[in-house]
Amino acid sequence: MVFVQKEIKLRPCRRGFHLVTSEIISQIPELRTIQKGVLHVFIKHTSASLTLNENAYPTVREDFENHFNEMVPEHAPYYGHDTEGSDDMPAHLKASILGSSVSIPVTDGRLNLGTWQGIYFCEHRNDGGARELVLTLSGEESGSSKWIK
Amino acid sequence: MVFVQKEIKLRPCRRGFHLVTSEIISQIPELRTIQKGVLHVFIKHTSASLTLNENAYPTVREDFENHFNEMVPEHAPYYGHDTEGSDDMPAHLKASILGSSVSIPVTDGRLNLGTWQGIYFCEHRNDGGARELVLTLSGEESGSSKWIK
Amino acid sequence: MVFVQKEIKLRPCRRGFHLVTSEIISQIPELRTIQKGVLHVFIKHTSASLTLNENAYPTVREDFENHFNEMVPEHAPYYGHDTEGSDDMPAHLKASILGSSVSIPVTDGRLNLGTWQGIYFCEHRNDGGARELVLTLSGEESGSSKWIK
Repeated sequence: MVFVQKEIKLRPCRRGFHLVTSEIISQIPELRTIQKGVLHVFIKHTSASLTLNENAYPTVREDFENHFNEMVPEHAPYYGHDTEGSDDMPAHLKASILGSSVSIPVTDGRLNLGTWQGIYFCEHRNDGGARELVLTLSGEESGSSKWIK
Repeated sequence: MVFVQKEIKLRPCRRGFHLVTSEIISQIPELRTIQKGVLHVFIKHTSASLTLNENAYPTVREDFENHFNEMVPEHAPYYGHDTEGSDDMPAHLKASILGSSVSIPVTDGRLNLGTWQGIYFCEHRNDGGARELVLTLSGEESGSSKWIK
Repeated sequence: MVFVQKEIKLRPCRRGFHLVTSEIISQIPELRTIQKGVLHVFIKHTSASLTLNENAYPTVREDFENHFNEMVPEHAPYYGHDTEGSDDMPAHLKASILGSSVSIPVTDGRLNLGTWQGIYFCEHRNDGGARELVLTLSGEESGSSKWIK
């Protein structure tokens, strides 16, 4: 049984939905030693979030931005918290709707994602800056070296 | 400490919200050996999802379908990704709003759910086909046979 | 490797979003012995939920209530499940949108939250009563006493 934990930084991204699967995998090479387990990916912010979705068409990620801007609008008449910019309160709401972590099974040294699944980093602020993540990998190591690919 | 992992398939379901608690429990009999732990249930798709909600009235699950169809409509004028059918882009959005996994505490050999909680499989496509799940159970085994009910 | 599990009750709260970070931490002093791990916080109900968001301004939590009441209205014409009060079906929907658990990394004996992150208990019913949570802490203990702060 192992527990591996790392804190990493994501480069600043423009507001929107961004694929970060390979960036995350590259930061935790210990994945390859785990036969079965779970990777927990956590974002230490309240105006950005993480989710899993389609890793192929950029139009899907654009439509995520379009839809979330409709469903959680700026300048809603019922917002009382408006001192940090019109993108701030919607960013908090979007972050909780999508969530601040994803948990992904690890099998035979790899993330056990479906063919079309990728990790989205969701930047809800106009200028969010670099964002901090905590990766926690738990699982059972393989007894043999065959998992070290 | 144990880590048990299984890949299972759910039978094809019509678009909507479906109770799958007993189907999932029956696929992982090792649950009965765990005194305290967590079961992670993960769906390997981007147009179907998992959530926990009311296990009693079918009208609740029907209203989930009704509400999500309002909150995430087909044919929204701002969708750019429309080549895979009008149910496709809403399915991706619904999947991320609800999430691709649920984590449930395991106590004394059982899922430690509330009286009214059940696992919903949420099929967001009109013809989603069979869907693949990964179950990962981690926890501490009981030292005695009393947990083997 | 340790697995610690506790069932706790939250005092009844009025409908709305409530900060419960310190209440939860105080219920699981074993946190201080964990060098790296994850705390899973689970709510055993289908009309209340948990999320992480801004721990500073009360107006943020008020706007959560305002926005969720718009996005998931009472008396929607498409609800079929209306026998338990007009706040019941929206409560179920809000609970699944926000989720029934949060998982938080634990590092050096503390929850590894961002500066502005806190745990929200989200009461979606008008009279929800006391709510039950299950806390499951898993991780690696420190070999030394320096973690016992």
